[in-house]
Amino acid sequence: MEDHAEDHDIEIEGYGGIGEEKEFGSMKEPLLLRNRQNNTSQIAIVGANVCPIESLDYEIVENELFKQDWRARKKNEIVQYVVLKWTLALLIGFSTGVVAFFSNLAVENIAGFKLLLTNSLMLRANYYQAFGAFAGCNAVLAVAAATLCAYGAPAAAGSGIPEVKAYLNGVDAPSILAPSTLFVKIFGSIFGVAAGLVVGKEGPMVHTGACIAAFLGQGGSRRYHLTWRWLRHFKNDRDRRDLVTCGAAAGVAAAFRAPVGGVLFALEEAASWWRSALLWRTFFTTAVVAVVLRGFMDFCKSGNCGLFGEGGLIMFDVNSSTANYGTPDLLAIIFLGVLGGLLGSFYNYLVDKVLRTYSIINEKGPIFKVILVLCISLLTSCCSYGLPWLSACTPCPPHLMEQCPTAGRSGNYKNFQCPPHQYNDLASLFFNTNDDAIKNLLSPGITKQFHIPTLLVFFSAIFFLGIVTYGIAVPSGLFIPVILAGASYGRLVGRLLGSISQLDAGLFALLGAASFLGGTMRMTVSLCVILLELTNDLLMLPLMMLVLLISKTVADCFNKGVYDQIVKMKGLPYMEAHAEPYMRQLVAGDVVSGPLFTFSGVEKVGNIWHALKITRHNAFPVIDEPPYTDAPELCGLVLRSHLLVLLKGKKFTKHKVMTGSEIMRRFKAHDFAKAGSGKGVRLEELEISEEEMEMYVDLHPITNTSPYTVVETMSLAKAAVLFRELGLRHLLVVPKTPGRPPIVGILTRHDFVPEHILGLYPHINPHK
Amino acid sequence: MEDHAEDHDIEIEGYGGIGEEKEFGSMKEPLLLRNRQNNTSQIAIVGANVCPIESLDYEIVENELFKQDWRARKKNEIVQYVVLKWTLALLIGFSTGVVAFFSNLAVENIAGFKLLLTNSLMLRANYYQAFGAFAGCNAVLAVAAATLCAYGAPAAAGSGIPEVKAYLNGVDAPSILAPSTLFVKIFGSIFGVAAGLVVGKEGPMVHTGACIAAFLGQGGSRRYHLTWRWLRHFKNDRDRRDLVTCGAAAGVAAAFRAPVGGVLFALEEAASWWRSALLWRTFFTTAVVAVVLRGFMDFCKSGNCGLFGEGGLIMFDVNSSTANYGTPDLLAIIFLGVLGGLLGSFYNYLVDKVLRTYSIINEKGPIFKVILVLCISLLTSCCSYGLPWLSACTPCPPHLMEQCPTAGRSGNYKNFQCPPHQYNDLASLFFNTNDDAIKNLLSPGITKQFHIPTLLVFFSAIFFLGIVTYGIAVPSGLFIPVILAGASYGRLVGRLLGSISQLDAGLFALLGAASFLGGTMRMTVSLCVILLELTNDLLMLPLMMLVLLISKTVADCFNKGVYDQIVKMKGLPYMEAHAEPYMRQLVAGDVVSGPLFTFSGVEKVGNIWHALKITRHNAFPVIDEPPYTDAPELCGLVLRSHLLVLLKGKKFTKHKVMTGSEIMRRFKAHDFAKAGSGKGVRLEELEISEEEMEMYVDLHPITNTSPYTVVETMSLAKAAVLFRELGLRHLLVVPKTPGRPPIVGILTRHDFVPEHILGLYPHINPHK
Repeated sequence: MEDHAEDHDIEIEGYGGIGEEKEFGSMKEPLLLRNRQNNTSQIAIVGANVCPIESLDYEIVENELFKQDWRARKKNEIVQYVVLKWTLALLIGFSTGVVAFFSNLAVENIAGFKLLLTNSLMLRANYYQAFGAFAGCNAVLAVAAATLCAYGAPAAAGSGIPEVKAYLNGVDAPSILAPSTLFVKIFGSIFGVAAGLVVGKEGPMVHTGACIAAFLGQGGSRRYHLTWRWLRHFKNDRDRRDLVTCGAAAGVAAAFRAPVGGVLFALEEAASWWRSALLWRTFFTTAVVAVVLRGFMDFCKSGNCGLFGEGGLIMFDVNSSTANYGTPDLLAIIFLGVLGGLLGSFYNYLVDKVLRTYSIINEKGPIFKVILVLCISLLTSCCSYGLPWLSACTPCPPHLMEQCPTAGRSGNYKNFQCPPHQYNDLASLFFNTNDDAIKNLLSPGITKQFHIPTLLVFFSAIFFLGIVTYGIAVPSGLFIPVILAGASYGRLVGRLLGSISQLDAGLFALLGAASFLGGTMRMTVSLCVILLELTNDLLMLPLMMLVLLISKTVADCFNKGVYDQIVKMKGLPYMEAHAEPYMRQLVAGDVVSGPLFTFSGVEKVGNIWHALKITRHNAFPVIDEPPYTDAPELCGLVLRSHLLVLLKGKKFTKHKVMTGSEIMRRFKAHDFAKAGSGKGVRLEELEISEEEMEMYVDLHPITNTSPYTVVETMSLAKAAVLFRELGLRHLLVVPKTPGRPPIVGILTRHDFVPEHILGLYPHINPHK
Repeated sequence: MEDHAEDHDIEIEGYGGIGEEKEFGSMKEPLLLRNRQNNTSQIAIVGANVCPIESLDYEIVENELFKQDWRARKKNEIVQYVVLKWTLALLIGFSTGVVAFFSNLAVENIAGFKLLLTNSLMLRANYYQAFGAFAGCNAVLAVAAATLCAYGAPAAAGSGIPEVKAYLNGVDAPSILAPSTLFVKIFGSIFGVAAGLVVGKEGPMVHTGACIAAFLGQGGSRRYHLTWRWLRHFKNDRDRRDLVTCGAAAGVAAAFRAPVGGVLFALEEAASWWRSALLWRTFFTTAVVAVVLRGFMDFCKSGNCGLFGEGGLIMFDVNSSTANYGTPDLLAIIFLGVLGGLLGSFYNYLVDKVLRTYSIINEKGPIFKVILVLCISLLTSCCSYGLPWLSACTPCPPHLMEQCPTAGRSGNYKNFQCPPHQYNDLASLFFNTNDDAIKNLLSPGITKQFHIPTLLVFFSAIFFLGIVTYGIAVPSGLFIPVILAGASYGRLVGRLLGSISQLDAGLFALLGAASFLGGTMRMTVSLCVILLELTNDLLMLPLMMLVLLISKTVADCFNKGVYDQIVKMKGLPYMEAHAEPYMRQLVAGDVVSGPLFTFSGVEKVGNIWHALKITRHNAFPVIDEPPYTDAPELCGLVLRSHLLVLLKGKKFTKHKVMTGSEIMRRFKAHDFAKAGSGKGVRLEELEISEEEMEMYVDLHPITNTSPYTVVETMSLAKAAVLFRELGLRHLLVVPKTPGRPPIVGILTRHDFVPEHILGLYPHINPHK
């Protein structure tokens, strides 16, 4: 499979990428290869370019140049930096709000036009023509989305939340935040949702927000001639991480019109590091989103937005004035929570299986991806158009405020095949946009009755379609399918238990959605707040909390949350906040092994070039040796990217002498600032003559003289906590006893991956 | 001042306490003494016993005993631990809910009785008698609260939030979470609030929740014969920190009936470390609180709770059905935000000044504390009873649903001195409990009109009383005074701008409260959610966010948040999440200095006893020396408390030999578990004979062999980040070059305190 790597742009280097980042591979190579082989089929789901997965580095590189730059820093630069930070937060919020509004506008208009067209054909009883028009529109839209995605930016497929989560954990999956991904994500999501696929636009919106943040954060894109010099302050991973966190929060805020929920989502699900200061900035960003969206919605109220109407940016107004409940209600709700937990973990299990199957199809090439999407689109069209025929017609209830049957696009009472003054309740769910279907499911029981078979059919179809749709090559969120399925079984339970519980069927639907969300995504506070903001009903809070806690607890007994599962399946080396128990049985020295590439303080250019050439290591220890010191001592750590910039500058000397001050005059700290992905100096670009290869270069000015170190006897668990808490990329392991070489090895993210550790020590019981 | 230290139980050892924790004091002694002298007057606010401030230690102590224990751990012990964690969360939530309910019940009944008595005297026109009864009741209650507080548990005075915040940052202020503090906090708060003082019960509730968590977490209290052996799992600072976080969240949730707000408060304001897993557990705790409170409230609805009525556990039901707003409304709200920011920072400034003045009075002894409280109580009574006379009587509006004038205790229309069918609007605010006054201020403008002079008088009086009341020796929260003042100026602004803004006066009051809260406390998301949960109106969200962001931004230009200010003034060495800029100009080696007390791997008992006797250090480095090793090498770090337990066990040998295995048989890891505050082995308890002093003891089994280390050339800023992120108590500094002694010094929390650093390096510009 590996020799096909160049033929198509699928990521099959999962562990390989990380393996190549390893510092000292030779002894472990067989293991790495084995891992690579084993995991190939699991990994190749995210389509991406062949460049390897990179780790992010949040450590402050304290080298001479940095210190000089710091000393020269003026007060106004600090003020400028703060102003810039907030300006960027504003820009991210504004852009995300605008993008969210326009993609909703596009979806509503495209899907609305499609539904109106089909409806008009049905009114004239041209049922086969109507199906043709419906399925045709869907197929064209789905193929458009798939083509964009398969050929343009494979990284834009799927939800995007797992990748954003991994990025915020320190794993930079290839081109996951690239401008092309942003473009494809926006338009692919519009087409995919408008095509009537059982996908949401919420997950993609989070990814879009993160992409916008990354785009603005790296000062635009050089390729598209959109660069801003004043943004160069943010050329480091730490600041980018903060911006991407704001972007993810803005995405949720825009998708659900839930500013507080957005902040909490970023906090609970997305971010791995969090500071109080960031809370405030994220809050500001989501507030901007809320203001922007409100402005646009007000503008649309006067009817300027075509078929937009109430918009996809719904607030499902449940407003149960009577939130009184007794013991039987509570029992019903506990039952709902348990059911949600069971169904949620089963859903995750099936999604996992389907994703593994699809990955085999998707690997065969982009055209197969498009064909798969086309199949799913036809299946969805058949279900949406075919299943409502199973339902009998219901006479419209008398004395109704609303129009019945519905005349326009949305509404509660779809006429479908029925005679006038009757409606088809299954069509009201299927033959509609997903947002309107949710609105119908959550509507109070008095306004709208759904028959029990209707709910059963709808739940089964949506549960099944949701599973087979995720993983195809279109941007596809999980929120909407899960809410749809949850609300339908919630309402079903409400109908069945109607005799013992006083609660409204709409409330049951809402709690059902909450339970299923809790069971699949395993969030608590953020889901709770998002649902409250969505439904505008604070009195539901205690019941919502109860349902979420129960469903999460039940589901956690079986498997992990769906996003964690996808992260794992994609082979992204996510680091958990806690160390695994078996890590206590090992020490740091157990997982590192030689040989190690090290440099002298003043090193021969040829040696450096050679080391950069034959390894993919991202950092090299620098050892000061006699005659400069009495005994070999650890000077620090030097980064590959810094070495490349230094070599390009060509400040070499004939003899082995320290030339630090000269280099300091030649370079400024921002010459070494981290470039956007794939934009740094490449080894192949360097033109170094034979003569220069024999010359020397002083590494001291670019050596980070205070890398974090641990003693080799520290337990791996403790080292993992240090690594994770500080967001490191490299952790130096030093010997316990003096008199040995001053460094034992380097720990990287890869060394903490369970598969790696258990490969080295197969006798360890991973569950103890 | 220092020689009076034993005469009264006031904490005057602020920096001294930390100084004594320092590892190597002799060179710095003059500095420490100077600091102590300088800060004495600033520190002596929290009354407390003379035991010093302790740091908390979140590091995993990896010694031989721990490793042995870990290896022997069975699977069911892990399950037991998890079950216990959740059981404790449940218990904390339940207890906090019960305590919150009963203290509200007590307050409502006591204050209600007092107001009814006064009212009945006024109806008979016995105005002087009425004042006597009113002021007398207030004085008795206030003196009861003050006596409890001054003699029982001085640590219970004040809000408690700053201390909880400091605890969660790693500073264990003396007896701040002791059972006696818990008792006094509950009853002191009941008496203080019932006495009509301008204090809230919200801050004390947070402290109460934290105390309950600490009490349960340390397995009860040995002194009160309430200990549970099965709770011994939690005898370490890490687990206690998590429990106290849950407790603080439960406190807020109980005080405001805001479960989500409680979680966010713990996250944004209280906690310094946070994990996703903790979010869930905290959420569970606050959910339990909500359920418990709801149960009690339902019970009280049937009138079983005396004068409880709607209860202090209010939800201010604003419910503005029309949340439409245009540009003039937004301008009015921006104005409100700016005003809130200015007033808030001014409030903080005045609170700081008043606290410093009071600390001088409070230091003189408990009786002075009581007198001060009595004075403030009389002042408050005069204001509450006297000022309403300034207001003219208003005829009751016709066609009113409510009774007018109010017959019972609470209500909108207080008769006061007015003839029948008229009411006094100032009395409706003053002559009421604080909760009812807030309810009146937030009531819609149509229902209730307050005259402009009324609001002006009330605002001035409450603003002033709030400032002079905080800092006296009663448990006193800041939320209620701030909400009262904020709501009154908000409503005032609403009245004044009534011509240009369409918003309701009640909404203006709510936004005014938000702006003043933002200006004093500087929280954002948590305040927003608390206020939303309190008022049950999600449509206010965008306006609330706007007001909070503006007021916080404006106020941050002037000074710090009120809690940070109090923490600083109390001399608690709080560690900020970010390093100060000037720390970049120093390296770790700059702030440590010798001489250092170190032990050999096998050390003479006498030496250990001597070192424990003459220093207050909490940890000592252990150095292995020839002949056991080739050259001196760092073995690890040993804690004072562990040394004391080891010495008490008396496993000594005549000769210098390793007896690790014997000691391992004698001791189990839980013998060394951290005892509750003040319960460990004391040096004075040890009875070691002259002969034993000459014997040896093997320290290896209790030596933490992998303490965190940094190289001496690491910048202080980077070391501070490591120290803070990992929650350390000791950070070893090792030499850069080999051949020197294996340890340079130990960094403790004290070394990162700005005053300490700037004392050592006065030439450094702290603002660069």
